[in-house]
Formats: sequence, structure tokens, C-alpha cells
Amino acid sequence: MKEYAAQYWKSLYEDVLPFWQKHSLDQEYGGYFTCLDADGHVYDTDKFVWLQARQAWTFSMLYNRLDQRQEWLDIAQSGAEFLLKHGSDDKGNYYFSLTREGQPLIAPYNIFSDCFAAMALGVYGRAANDSIYLDEAKRIYENILKRRSNPKGKYTKAITATRPLKNFALPMILSNLALELDHILTEEELNEITTDCEELILGSFWHEEQGVLLENVSPDGSLSDSFDGRLTNPGHGLEACWFLLDIAERRGDQVLIEKLVDMALKILDFGWDEQHDGIFYFLDIKGHPPQQLEWDQKLWWVHFEALIAMIKGYRLTKNPKCASWFQRLHTYTWERFHDHRGGLEWYGYLNRQGQVLLPLKGGKWKGCFHIPRALFVLAQELESL
Amino acid sequence: MKEYAAQYWKSLYEDVLPFWQKHSLDQEYGGYFTCLDADGHVYDTDKFVWLQARQAWTFSMLYNRLDQRQEWLDIAQSGAEFLLKHGSDDKGNYYFSLTREGQPLIAPYNIFSDCFAAMALGVYGRAANDSIYLDEAKRIYENILKRRSNPKGKYTKAITATRPLKNFALPMILSNLALELDHILTEEELNEITTDCEELILGSFWHEEQGVLLENVSPDGSLSDSFDGRLTNPGHGLEACWFLLDIAERRGDQVLIEKLVDMALKILDFGWDEQHDGIFYFLDIKGHPPQQLEWDQKLWWVHFEALIAMIKGYRLTKNPKCASWFQRLHTYTWERFHDHRGGLEWYGYLNRQGQVLLPLKGGKWKGCFHIPRALFVLAQELESL
Repeated sequence: MKEYAAQYWKSLYEDVLPFWQKHSLDQEYGGYFTCLDADGHVYDTDKFVWLQARQAWTFSMLYNRLDQRQEWLDIAQSGAEFLLKHGSDDKGNYYFSLTREGQPLIAPYNIFSDCFAAMALGVYGRAANDSIYLDEAKRIYENILKRRSNPKGKYTKAITATRPLKNFALPMILSNLALELDHILTEEELNEITTDCEELILGSFWHEEQGVLLENVSPDGSLSDSFDGRLTNPGHGLEACWFLLDIAERRGDQVLIEKLVDMALKILDFGWDEQHDGIFYFLDIKGHPPQQLEWDQKLWWVHFEALIAMIKGYRLTKNPKCASWFQRLHTYTWERFHDHRGGLEWYGYLNRQGQVLLPLKGGKWKGCFHIPRALFVLAQELESL
Repeated sequence: MKEYAAQYWKSLYEDVLPFWQKHSLDQEYGGYFTCLDADGHVYDTDKFVWLQARQAWTFSMLYNRLDQRQEWLDIAQSGAEFLLKHGSDDKGNYYFSLTREGQPLIAPYNIFSDCFAAMALGVYGRAANDSIYLDEAKRIYENILKRRSNPKGKYTKAITATRPLKNFALPMILSNLALELDHILTEEELNEITTDCEELILGSFWHEEQGVLLENVSPDGSLSDSFDGRLTNPGHGLEACWFLLDIAERRGDQVLIEKLVDMALKILDFGWDEQHDGIFYFLDIKGHPPQQLEWDQKLWWVHFEALIAMIKGYRLTKNPKCASWFQRLHTYTWERFHDHRGGLEWYGYLNRQGQVLLPLKGGKWKGCFHIPRALFVLAQELESL
């Protein structure tokens, strides 16, 4: 365990943090470049709000929880300031993307920009002890709750009267966001939202028969036999399991813990590619062809979220299946995603066979977030065992 | 050549038309099932307007141009009636998808539903000699021209003031649609729209330096150094080349013909995968990682459009490069996409290595369209040589 922990700490301190410190900082306009090739060179300068927020969160979180290094706070500040200055429109909704200079490129059609902005500014506000950021985080959080029943607004293409569906992503993200903002929310607000999310996820999105979390269900929680309704994303499911494990641990609810670990194990069984190893990106629960052409690809975040779910599950239940899955995932992840040259982050996108599909280290969706978060959590969990 | 022609006719009559006649007809509600698995079983009943229209067009077109079989007209009628009854909203814009029964599922955010509906109803109206369909086709066509400068309307997410871009897809589709509706448009209307499209495509979207057609350019036709601006889809480019070759042939413009054949050959050079054969789906012209995770996949329509471009190019210029590319594409396409069991259509989605990625014969995007159109055109072109 100690050796494993050291391996994760080493990658955090040597492969990952220096990579983003060296290559991603926009000294001229603030914020971060996230489109970085295999060697760290910037190949595009657009700024995606999810990733601006996530990098600001990462360095703020590490400052709060690992080490109060001034350089980490400075990096976080650059992104937090950029977001506060350029991130939102005149209604206070956060854009999806901006130019390097901060001009809006893609409208606020996507409520997850707001979720990650709230997470970033709230955690940065705590690090910097700055009420401007804490207040903005609270405002965004309340705005998300207001938009919750219709998060896409005028950009909604689905005619909901014909086939109403509830989507899994927002309750999943909120279950994590609430804990991240526990210094801003009252205990009552925190309990209300986490209980809501837990009941919704376990009561509606969990599909006992197949042992998966569904991406979309009918309003009453029943299966919608449609492309959207049959869709599962095992990585999403595994990430939600550890978000909820955090909530269950906080409450000391061992029954919920056992249930969540059982769910995570079933999701892994369903999502694992027995032929080539690794976890599929998307699957149709009836085995039909999914609409997502990238369904069979192996993505970095899926595997890191699975590692976290297994190590937390093991610590909290001592279920040996968690340990053996952890081992299997660890081997695959280090063999396939890690850039063995060292100091150059990790690959993000592999094809089904486990070969590099896109040599980027950062892009539109991959930034300084899942990997440093996972390395930090995994190293700490492994140390505590 | 005769043997090749026979091979294409055989596949049209034995693999493709009977497959859709047997498996796709919805006897209860009209229209077509398009989500068909490897053996033709229906795995989803949603009706995508693009594909309803395209199948109605295919059978109408074959009735008009190949053989006046009553069964083909009946099949076309089923889809045309379904579209007329259920396809459009109260403003006359066509939905993206409908339930099996015809209830709207996805709003008219996408003007290509209208383009394919106009094509289907116009060509069906000619086959059935029915002015109701001809009038509706003309109305849709005029509505498309009205919506042309802002085709997505309120669903537009891009903040166009920051980075205005022109998109290649609509002029490309219009250049084909105009010829399909030549019995509805006046000669003046036809000349105006085809000249417009040709000037736009050659003047703005053609990128001489790399030898590709770009998916998006700045309003003045210059390169936008952004993800959208660097994107090329070789299949799109090759399809546009043969659409424009049809226009050039109609005009007897040999200079334009030579230019278009040169373009198609350059696109093939750029888009061909030297390592595993086949044409890539998406590429970044500067070689950066594209946002499209499916970038390296090999799609059926891309290869059939390339075959058409090469055979038309060969007939019109006798350029031997067209013949050798045709041969190379023919070998790859028959080896990789054809279902050798016979009578069971063709596969649509291969991975980079040329193995089947999704075993479907029809889905959300693959229907009764590109393959029967290509088999018909290729067989005719080969016979005429």
C-alpha cells in the first residue's frame, strides 16, 4: 500500500502539477491554455469554461487540503479572476467557452459550466479567504437550483411532452458540488440537496436488473426503451458511486455504503471489456448499437474514477472484490494511459485496443482536473490503509 | 467495366433493395424503421426525418430513373405521406425526429431535415404526378432559402459576433437539392442557386494550400485558426465534388470539371489513411488533434461518395489517377463494408483498422440512401464507359 501511495504522490508531483504549471498558464490574459499536445505545446488557445474552472478548483483544493504553497494559490487566482471577469453573461449564466482574451464564444447552453464555476470560485474563495468569490459561488449555486428543472432553457431540442426524461448528470454533479461548498451552505441546505440527489440516483437512475446507472429515465423512474433511455456510461456511474460514498461516510450510513459498493462492483462487471481490457465509454443496456460512435473508446477519467470508487469501497467495507478490481484497474491505467517518458502528464484517449487515439494531454474536455484529483485522493486513501 | 457494373447492379437488386423492402416498412403507421441490426431486425422504432425522407427519395428516384415498379412507388408513398402528415411543425419547419406513431421528438433545429424533405417530396411528387407533394417541396425549398443566413435560429449556441463563421454543409446540400428539384425550379432559379453554391464552395471553402474543402471559414473566406476552422471532412468534400461535377456537366463547363477532379484527387490524397487504408472521417488540417473522437473511423458513405467522385471524374476527364483511385477504393469498400453473407445490406461503421465497429445495417444516420444511390450511379457510370 505504501509503495502504491508513493507511486501516486510521485506522479502528482512530477508528472502532473509541473506540466500544468509550465505549459498551461496564460501570462498575458490570465486563465489557462488547456489544448496541449503530447509534449505540452499549446495547439489552440480557446478557453473552455469547464476546464478554466476545474483547473482553478484543483490548485485551490490542493492549497486547502495538501500544502499552502503560494504558487498554487497564484495559479488558482489567475483562473478565478478570469472567470469572474469574463465567465458569465448579463444574466449571470456561465458561457461554455471564451476566446483566449475572454470574449464569449459559445452561449450558456450548458448548466455544467455554472456547476464547475461555483465549485472553483467557492473553493478558491476559501483558499484566498475572499468573500467576493464566496458570494459569487453562492449566487451561482442558487442560480443552478433555479434552472434545475429546465437546465438547457431555450436550447432544449427535445419535445418533452412526447417523451419526458430525467437526466442523471445534474443530480450526480450536485451531489459532489454540495460537499465542495460545505463552507458556504448551511447544514440544512447541505442535507437537503445531498438527500435529494441520493434518493434520485438510487431510486430512479439505478437499474437493478442490469446493475447499471442509466443516463436518462422516465419521470417515474421507469426505463424508457429508447436510445437515450437504454444508454449507460459506466464512468459516470462509478464517479457517482464515490460522490455518494463521500456523503454516506459523512453521515456514517454503513447500509448506504454497502449498497453503493455493491453498485460500483456491478457497474464495473457490466462496463469492463473482457476482450481488450478497460472500461467502455458508452453501452446500450440491451446490447443494441449505441448512437455514440466513440462507445468503445477507453477514457482516462473513467478509469481514474473507477480507481477512486474501488479504493474508497475497500477502505469502507474491506470487500476483497474492491481490492482485486483496484489491482486490475491500476495495472491497466498505468500501462496504457501513463506517459512513460515522465513529467508529461497522462494520455486521455485510447482506442478499444488500448492504443493512443489522440496524443493530446489536454483539449476541450481534458484539463487539469480528473488526474490530479484522483492522484491526490488515491495517494491519501492508500496511505490511510 | 462490364463486370464491375454487373457487380454493382447485383448488390443493388440483391443485397440492398430487398433488405429495406423486407425489414424497414412500418405497415401499421407508415414510414420506415431504420434502426436495423446486422440481420435486419428492428432494434429501435424512432423515426429520424432525414432518413424517412431519404428512403422515400431513393424509391421515388429509382421509380423515375430506373424502372417504374409499382412496389417502389408504394414504398415511396408510405414515407412521403408520413412526412406530409407528421413531419413539420406549425411554422412549416421539419422536425429532426418523430416517434414511430409520428409524434414530434426533436425540434426543427436542423435545416437538413427540411432539405431532405424537399428532396423526397419533390421527387416523389414527380413519380406520383401529385401536385400536393410538388407544392410542398417548393414551399420547403423557399423556406430553406429564407432561413439560410441563420439556419439554426434560436438553437444557435455560437456567439457569432465574436467569431463569425460560414459553414460548408448547406451550400453543399443545396447544390445537389437544386438539381433534384429541376422540375420544380425555373431555369433562372436553378442557375442562380447552383452558381451561388459553386462560387461559395470554390471561392471560400476550398483551401488550396492543403488541398481540402474546409467545414467552416471566416466570412471573407479566410482560414479561422480554431477547432472549427481547421476541420475537414474528406467525405463531405468528395461528395461536394461530384455534386458540382453534375452541375458542371449540365453546363458543359470543362474548365470547372478539370478543377473539380483535381480537387477530389487532392482531398483523397489528404484524407487517405496510409497505415490502415480507408478515408478518415475528420482531420485537422494542421495535424492537431480534432475534437471529434470518431475522427479515425471509416464510414460507409465516405467511401461510396469517393467512388462516385472518381468514376464521374474518370468519365469526364479520363485522368488515369481517377481510375487507379477507383480501383483502390473499390477493393477496400467491397472487402470491408460489404456483408459477404449476401442479401443483408452493407456495414456502415468500421474502426481505423477496418473492423466492424457497430454491426448495425441502419441507425440514426444510416438508412436507405447513400448505398442504393451509389450502387445505381456507379452501375450506370460503369456501363457508360
